Amino acid sequence: MSRIHNFSAGPAALPLEVLQKAQQELTDFRGCGMSIMEVSHRGPEYIQVDASARERMLRLLGIEEGYEVLFLQGGASMQFLMVPYNFLNKDQTADYIATGTWSKKAIKEAKAFGNVHISFSSEQDEFTYVPTNDQLNPSGIASYTHYTSNNTIFGTEFEQEPVCDTPLVCDASSNFLSKPIHTKRHALIYAGAQKNLGPAGVTIVVIEKEFLSKAKATGVPTLLQYGTHVGEMYNTPPVFCVYMVDLVLEWIEQHGGLAGMEAHNKAKAALLYEEIDLDAFYRGTAQKNSRSRMNVTFRLSDPELEKVFIKDAEANGFSGLKGHRSVGGMRASIYNACPVASVEALVQFMQEFRRTRG
Amino acid sequence: MSRIHNFSAGPAALPLEVLQKAQQELTDFRGCGMSIMEVSHRGPEYIQVDASARERMLRLLGIEEGYEVLFLQGGASMQFLMVPYNFLNKDQTADYIATGTWSKKAIKEAKAFGNVHISFSSEQDEFTYVPTNDQLNPSGIASYTHYTSNNTIFGTEFEQEPVCDTPLVCDASSNFLSKPIHTKRHALIYAGAQKNLGPAGVTIVVIEKEFLSKAKATGVPTLLQYGTHVGEMYNTPPVFCVYMVDLVLEWIEQHGGLAGMEAHNKAKAALLYEEIDLDAFYRGTAQKNSRSRMNVTFRLSDPELEKVFIKDAEANGFSGLKGHRSVGGMRASIYNACPVASVEALVQFMQEFRRTRG
Repeated sequence: MSRIHNFSAGPAALPLEVLQKAQQELTDFRGCGMSIMEVSHRGPEYIQVDASARERMLRLLGIEEGYEVLFLQGGASMQFLMVPYNFLNKDQTADYIATGTWSKKAIKEAKAFGNVHISFSSEQDEFTYVPTNDQLNPSGIASYTHYTSNNTIFGTEFEQEPVCDTPLVCDASSNFLSKPIHTKRHALIYAGAQKNLGPAGVTIVVIEKEFLSKAKATGVPTLLQYGTHVGEMYNTPPVFCVYMVDLVLEWIEQHGGLAGMEAHNKAKAALLYEEIDLDAFYRGTAQKNSRSRMNVTFRLSDPELEKVFIKDAEANGFSGLKGHRSVGGMRASIYNACPVASVEALVQFMQEFRRTRG
Repeated sequence: MSRIHNFSAGPAALPLEVLQKAQQELTDFRGCGMSIMEVSHRGPEYIQVDASARERMLRLLGIEEGYEVLFLQGGASMQFLMVPYNFLNKDQTADYIATGTWSKKAIKEAKAFGNVHISFSSEQDEFTYVPTNDQLNPSGIASYTHYTSNNTIFGTEFEQEPVCDTPLVCDASSNFLSKPIHTKRHALIYAGAQKNLGPAGVTIVVIEKEFLSKAKATGVPTLLQYGTHVGEMYNTPPVFCVYMVDLVLEWIEQHGGLAGMEAHNKAKAALLYEEIDLDAFYRGTAQKNSRSRMNVTFRLSDPELEKVFIKDAEANGFSGLKGHRSVGGMRASIYNACPVASVEALVQFMQEFRRTRG
């Protein structure tokens, strides 16, 4: 069977060239006589992969100095607790911008460590938009401000990072490296790899050295201290996942870097939203000025017809179009590795579906 | 280049058949048109892999009932803190058996959560042995007793689990599934995958349901509660790593299960120790009744000659024989996937080295 059109929200499509390269060297990594899965994490083969991935990451983000890149485990869920564990004391306050399910989970974990001030929430409007800067209501005393740059479930995305006077922490899990960002306005950016960067099992943390110096010195288990992972490998990293991330970063560099990704992702999103906006048959769920270029969420007027859409799509080789179980509807996740051809094919399918069922 | 003889302490050799199967289906997992790295963790492909790995694990361990198998992240280092986080209060005591570097790390983390009673330590004898039951000095009030079943750095291994009146917690990272064990005498067994089970990036936790019911109900971050991971996937698991574990478990089943592994590992260890014991040229570092079948540690009388040994070995296609940086010397790690042919070749090399340098 040939490869199908994969619109999964994550784990998600990877570049075919990357998979083929990994496949080719899976039993013998670059002539060393072992798989990359079999080499010591302190041996020359992995050290080189690790350094390469780190360098590519810093280069793509335009931060040659002042930041550390860490390859951790546990996904964004682990960062939900590690951020306040390291940076929020009982008598301190952190500002959180609530734009969806993942923000709420981050907030829940933070509350166990200190005070949380919700500086914005669109929950009463079913999280259909993200705030503009003048909609933010900061506490004025926050140790940091946390936001979710893209909301997979509700299909919304920040066009730019929010402006604030505190260190800025970003859960970028679902749009990391999909476009250029102002890295230096951030104190900490974290992202699970499984959307734009590689297989599930590694979390990328980009942390400003100055912010790192403010982390709690005591009371945090060794493994959960960011500082533990700086400068040396404390424990065995998820070697294969980091290797895959390095290959994906190489692919991004070969395809125009973050500017290239942005153009590619803009074009794909435009195709889909154009189709959705054509008439009243499809309806986008996010407010137009908050629409995500990563997760395009849309509905049909009839929930029964939505089921038919998803089933027919599946039968025609389109996978992963069902909306998140908490909100229903449809969702096309079109991360970096999703080819334009897949989006074009989906648009064609949507047109045909409208024609026959509209 | 052909595959080399891999004696790495972990990440370590994987069965070649397993690597070849993974390679074959890397871009198209069993005809689904996607890589296993690209499928949703809530879709049918991964659900089946996950269930298969769990079932195989329980079957191999002979525990059809009363236990849960969890696939977590963060390695044994994460378990060092999760165990006391869930099972040790400030006013409670846990007994720890100190048999090496990893035990000590587990003890360090536990001390942040409650009282730790060291019921045995061989540190004054450079961790050259593990205790017999009559050498244990339990507190009598422990919430649990923790031990490290195999010590990679010092080359020692418990022949059987220690006998105790408390729930028994085992760090089995480096000899898990290398032989039959009395699973039901354990309340919790954890193991990083990267020695006997698969690539680095997934930690297997086998936990008794009754013990689980005693976990703290409050004060533990959601992701760090064992209960969070029972019955449903709370967050995205390390999909590819679990898939690899499933393939390795299948390989173990095809090779006689745990009894088959034990015979295979006994034979390999016997070959090496026989060579070491032949005369005074090589010297085993662990006491004979505590010797590990997984990590065979040995020295030469002259540290300079040890460097020559490791260099010559490397040049002859033997990788990973350098002892841990904290103790020096040599170490041959011969986990499940290390073929008997590799050990035979190493013994031959050792004989030749003795002949020419002895």
